[in-house]
Amino acid sequence: MRTALVIGTGLIGTSAALALASRGVRVHLRDHDPERARTAAALGAGTDDEPPGPVDLALVAVPPARITAAVAAAQRQDLARAYVDVGSVKGALRADLDAHGCDPTTYLGTHPMAGSEKSGPLAGSADLFEGRPWVLTPTSVTDTEVLNLALELVSLCRAVPVVMDADAHDRAVALVSHTPQLLSSMVAARLEKADETAVRLCGQGIRDVTRIAASDSGMWLDILSANPGPVADVLEELAVDLAGTVRALRGLESVPAADAGAADEDGKAALALSDVLRRGREGSARVPGKHGQAPAAYETVAVLISDRPGELARIFADAGAVGVNVEDVRIEHATGRQAGHVQLMVESRAAQPLAAALRERGWALRTE
Amino acid sequence: MRTALVIGTGLIGTSAALALASRGVRVHLRDHDPERARTAAALGAGTDDEPPGPVDLALVAVPPARITAAVAAAQRQDLARAYVDVGSVKGALRADLDAHGCDPTTYLGTHPMAGSEKSGPLAGSADLFEGRPWVLTPTSVTDTEVLNLALELVSLCRAVPVVMDADAHDRAVALVSHTPQLLSSMVAARLEKADETAVRLCGQGIRDVTRIAASDSGMWLDILSANPGPVADVLEELAVDLAGTVRALRGLESVPAADAGAADEDGKAALALSDVLRRGREGSARVPGKHGQAPAAYETVAVLISDRPGELARIFADAGAVGVNVEDVRIEHATGRQAGHVQLMVESRAAQPLAAALRERGWALRTE
Repeated sequence: MRTALVIGTGLIGTSAALALASRGVRVHLRDHDPERARTAAALGAGTDDEPPGPVDLALVAVPPARITAAVAAAQRQDLARAYVDVGSVKGALRADLDAHGCDPTTYLGTHPMAGSEKSGPLAGSADLFEGRPWVLTPTSVTDTEVLNLALELVSLCRAVPVVMDADAHDRAVALVSHTPQLLSSMVAARLEKADETAVRLCGQGIRDVTRIAASDSGMWLDILSANPGPVADVLEELAVDLAGTVRALRGLESVPAADAGAADEDGKAALALSDVLRRGREGSARVPGKHGQAPAAYETVAVLISDRPGELARIFADAGAVGVNVEDVRIEHATGRQAGHVQLMVESRAAQPLAAALRERGWALRTE
Repeated sequence: MRTALVIGTGLIGTSAALALASRGVRVHLRDHDPERARTAAALGAGTDDEPPGPVDLALVAVPPARITAAVAAAQRQDLARAYVDVGSVKGALRADLDAHGCDPTTYLGTHPMAGSEKSGPLAGSADLFEGRPWVLTPTSVTDTEVLNLALELVSLCRAVPVVMDADAHDRAVALVSHTPQLLSSMVAARLEKADETAVRLCGQGIRDVTRIAASDSGMWLDILSANPGPVADVLEELAVDLAGTVRALRGLESVPAADAGAADEDGKAALALSDVLRRGREGSARVPGKHGQAPAAYETVAVLISDRPGELARIFADAGAVGVNVEDVRIEHATGRQAGHVQLMVESRAAQPLAAALRERGWALRTE
């Protein structure tokens, strides 16, 4: 790939343009707001001059509602050999493109699994896609050359290509992205009118579950509106679990613990509860951790720190001094105090040496 | 408080005993398994000798199902001036204690909001409760001396006392702890039988939402079984949101986007979706961040790191060198690559100087 045209210089378009430009591709930038294209150009993402002739690849990175029109217009003007979009939902889009007479041989629907809370060209970054899955949804009529140009794009952005059927993609993101988002919102929504005292009891668990509920509502409304069927399917499955759990809890509530005749009912309710907890454990074990692997069994070394600047630096320096690689880290802040625990996740064989080294250097450890 | 008896030397009992012993209280340790009491004693949590006479405070830290019997027996033997338990559910327990003729004047139900994935005396730590809320549920008949002894216990454990009505406590933990746990399990359960390709698309969002689904099912079954009513109440509220969301999604699905006559239906469905997203944002803003405050608006500085040992040490040393306090940190591992981003959360005014200092020292930053 020697030339590319990026249509839409928001976060995704600008990031891809920066990656392509940094790897020697001549990138042309276009946006409905010329100021944004100029900004992206000023960041080094390419030029906002019009391309002199058809480019190798046109990357359409406009909001969902405008993708069809943008692809159709670009194909009509014969701007490129291949047309690729980056919308987060793929099935309905394909039908819409067909309805608008787009050429399915030169178009390929893709979805990079990357983003940021920020948007616009200034949020762009050449390494936004680094190591992230980038879904490609070729069909039987997609030109091989077009698929290869898209694979080159993914490779130049240092992402990991994943080929999927468009509808399978939509079902997958409903499962791993759209459903968690909605359930995070629904758990958080319960706090909207909760007593202040109850809210004080929040711990790390609810903090993790509700983190993404703080995301931009407008963006999520667009995403969910574009994928209603698959999301509703997953939510309906979840509603069955939810109803079964409520039923089990009500059963436990109404049965006096001492009533021997009710032991059967009690046992059934407990079984329903443990079943959902068990399936949750099995499912959570499948969530990839780092490097796309199943979460490794790291050991945690928990260290008490004060809130003074430099405490984290000291701790990581001390860990580094004994050659231990910290695989993950979590800071757990104590409520109401200027202190907290740092949990250092390390490989099992490194936990004991690390704990010993930190103790020797005067750190207070929590045994976990 | 000069003397205490800890009945049950698991994680919580041993941790409280370690804290009391380290602050000069003479602690006696007792467990149904004498080996566990001996282990706790060996850790410095006190002595497993029987107390020569009544102690100031008996801390009952046995599993939920055995609390009533343990409190009743201790009161019968006149072991202490005050009796305190640490069970995670308080309302039903009180009724059960009354039914067993326990003395309500010398008993106080409490619940320290602290724990660990590990259990047993070896997991104990004097600072387990440091800065954590510790709920006390006195009634109108609780002796003031008993309340004051419990407050002294909380203070010696460096926890933050929160006084609540027993039933209000149970509703609060249903909301902020038991419901998030179950919903995390239900979202994770959807992955149990998902295609491997779908699972590959998991990102940080679902990782956070499903983290606690990996918790011990047996412990959670006990907790949920002890608080069925309040948990079912919250889940039923959530089920209303869930049903409304499914209805809205099905509405969006059945209506062709181009059908003008359906715009009203479309608008109503979108409204229902944005409403749940909006309430989720409001609720999530109430979750206390560090130091029990609402989450501060930190800025994120994202740095690309390799997986070599010492990378984190270097980064924190470089941050410390410019006097910036890192408020929180998150390591985002890229799928399929030996690298990731470290997101350093710092106060707004520190973000620019930190970014500049890190760039100067050769770090690759993602602009966020």
